Amino acid sequence: MIQDSSFVLGGGIAFSEGPNSIVTFYRGYVVCVDGVCKGAFPELPDKYRFLQLYDYGERLIIPGMTDLHVHAPQYTFRGIGMDEELLEWLSTYTFPEEAKYADIEYAKKAYKYFTEDLRRCFTTRAVVFGTIHNEATLELMRQLESTGISSYVGKVNMDRNGGEHLQEESAASSLAATVDWLEQVEGKFANTKPILTPRFIPSCSDELMKGLGKLAEERGLRIQSHLSENHSEIAWVKELVPKSSCYANAYEMFDTMGTTERPTIMAHCVHSDKKEMEILKKHGAFIAHCADSNMNLTSGIAPIRKFLDAGINIGLGTDVAAGSSMNMVKTMLITLQASKMYYRLVDTDVKPLTFEEVFYLATEGGGKYFGNVGAFKDGYDFDAVVIDDSKMCSMRDMSIRERIERMCYNDADVIIKDKFVKGKRVFSNN
Amino acid sequence: MIQDSSFVLGGGIAFSEGPNSIVTFYRGYVVCVDGVCKGAFPELPDKYRFLQLYDYGERLIIPGMTDLHVHAPQYTFRGIGMDEELLEWLSTYTFPEEAKYADIEYAKKAYKYFTEDLRRCFTTRAVVFGTIHNEATLELMRQLESTGISSYVGKVNMDRNGGEHLQEESAASSLAATVDWLEQVEGKFANTKPILTPRFIPSCSDELMKGLGKLAEERGLRIQSHLSENHSEIAWVKELVPKSSCYANAYEMFDTMGTTERPTIMAHCVHSDKKEMEILKKHGAFIAHCADSNMNLTSGIAPIRKFLDAGINIGLGTDVAAGSSMNMVKTMLITLQASKMYYRLVDTDVKPLTFEEVFYLATEGGGKYFGNVGAFKDGYDFDAVVIDDSKMCSMRDMSIRERIERMCYNDADVIIKDKFVKGKRVFSNN
Repeated sequence: MIQDSSFVLGGGIAFSEGPNSIVTFYRGYVVCVDGVCKGAFPELPDKYRFLQLYDYGERLIIPGMTDLHVHAPQYTFRGIGMDEELLEWLSTYTFPEEAKYADIEYAKKAYKYFTEDLRRCFTTRAVVFGTIHNEATLELMRQLESTGISSYVGKVNMDRNGGEHLQEESAASSLAATVDWLEQVEGKFANTKPILTPRFIPSCSDELMKGLGKLAEERGLRIQSHLSENHSEIAWVKELVPKSSCYANAYEMFDTMGTTERPTIMAHCVHSDKKEMEILKKHGAFIAHCADSNMNLTSGIAPIRKFLDAGINIGLGTDVAAGSSMNMVKTMLITLQASKMYYRLVDTDVKPLTFEEVFYLATEGGGKYFGNVGAFKDGYDFDAVVIDDSKMCSMRDMSIRERIERMCYNDADVIIKDKFVKGKRVFSNN
Repeated sequence: MIQDSSFVLGGGIAFSEGPNSIVTFYRGYVVCVDGVCKGAFPELPDKYRFLQLYDYGERLIIPGMTDLHVHAPQYTFRGIGMDEELLEWLSTYTFPEEAKYADIEYAKKAYKYFTEDLRRCFTTRAVVFGTIHNEATLELMRQLESTGISSYVGKVNMDRNGGEHLQEESAASSLAATVDWLEQVEGKFANTKPILTPRFIPSCSDELMKGLGKLAEERGLRIQSHLSENHSEIAWVKELVPKSSCYANAYEMFDTMGTTERPTIMAHCVHSDKKEMEILKKHGAFIAHCADSNMNLTSGIAPIRKFLDAGINIGLGTDVAAGSSMNMVKTMLITLQASKMYYRLVDTDVKPLTFEEVFYLATEGGGKYFGNVGAFKDGYDFDAVVIDDSKMCSMRDMSIRERIERMCYNDADVIIKDKFVKGKRVFSNN
């Protein structure tokens, strides 16, 4: 079933109208025409009655989720070494593992684990870090393309502090390799786009950063990186770029903070202050909030309420493997808990995020990075996840709103039945 | 298979030697004779070769876990209303739900959901709140007994502030009902024991508290309750018991803080200071640390490192439904994240808990409440969980220690194959 890209799905519908409101329809309908959403309705409008209807009955239908920050080569060692903080964790676990992706056979096998698990989770859009290796990154893109998920993928740039095995020879060779990679992927994929990926300032010389900034502008490319995750990292950046007024300003100096048309994603921003917020806002950057990772590596809690109030773009990232799961609803749970603890322990003027807000961040908040994505609104790409939560025993009739909150707090018995990206079914568990 | 209560299990063994060390054997053995553990070994000692060996190969075998604090009647509404804080959550969601357990048919059905899910999770020991209703609590105990899990269960006492539908008429009638209930359960169950359960000071008049303290002493019974979970609750207790020097002292005044021989369990202790710690220590009380719940209800983070350093008994509680899951490994994850955030956001002199410590708390830390429980040591009750983590893809040979850490951070693909309590197999998923 569902071969065509025009159809109607019937079931328990939920999507964000905006950050503060979730629209729900018990036994409603969501319409897809040529891969584009025509809206969601409590009753099916006459003009869509000619379309094939797939009735999911009591199941939930929600927009696909966007994972704004995930490291593909770290997936297979998720969940270990979690007593370390960022810089120790990188040198002990992460860099040695990523170095192995020089071996394409290793990469093929490991990326298969990543892409297969990504295929079967809530994520329909992802922004992904690869490694410094062109061949492995190309392989990752091939595999991602085959999942039907829509993504940006970065060959990582690192010309310093990567140790013997995870470092490119020079800024020039890193840039040349990047250009090679861009030419290799040019026109190759429908759903898998390249994104420039300086790992973070400590991994990239000034020359490399400047070169990437220039390349981004010349070719109209986007950039992703990390910002203000950990105190030791921030102090190090200040040493490495002494003229910068803050970490975000260092990126700005190298023209890598992007523009509204090609927004940069900055993961973390745990310790971003007002000045960094202004820079992020000015450039139209997206913050990838990675609460699971930030707790696991003892980094801290990003003040998302402040970022929202300032009108900065925000989505959620799982940040595997500092985050230990690609499960976006688990990420939602930890985002809520983190924000409650920021309120309780740091600043009672910064109110906790509501469930509505976190559902928005996981769907349309991050989806906006991909355009009109993440809600069942007219003209949006049709990304949807169909969920069977009937194994979650209950003694009451739960509203759709209650059922999606419950799923976020406890998804142990929740089954993803079908997943659609741009109107195409990319996963089915029937 | 495994009908007898004497046997050997072979597999990847892990258990705590103490709070700071996990013993692991790759392809080791753990021996059970008449329901009692004879130890774990890298090679099977000759004297146990006559026992039937069940070889689980690459599977993990760990001690069963103890859930020191869980509310059975709240299970079926877990995961909703989580934007509220404690007192609002109790009055809006919890008390109206618990009132329904006056209907025994409702209780029978709802408790079946609870006990069946408890049967299939990591928990082998549990300390459980029922409701104020005798008949429903007896039904809960019957059902728990049939699971084979070992538990303490409390008929709840509440003679004030429960509203129209969840309040006993007077201290005297609450005490009389408690005595009735104790007589009903006397000698009835092998693995399900009664525990006195004043909900918390706001729910129990001085007279009722004193009566329960006296009953506990007369009949050698244990007590469980809540302590210092939430700022508004603490302020309320100060109003209700103005002569108390702190919340813990209020319990002390009513002789409900227990003794080393019959230790009281106090859930939460989020805001317990040095003075409360001294009272807890003096009485040999157990703290049930409920990190998931404490984050969900924006209560805060209990300083577990301080409690450990002070030598106070501690175990973990899921505290369903303020905690949203009975999954003890998820509770471990949130315990770790909470302790990291306490260190980062509150006090960098209070070092985060290590994985070793949290594994200890989940197994032997809470298990001690039941005696020699929670480790594969000679003379301990034989409680064990056999786990298949083979679906957790990895590119490296993981050590047993790494695999149990990974399971705690990400248990999505982890399957519980068998569960044993006192040498009896109580659950199997083969």
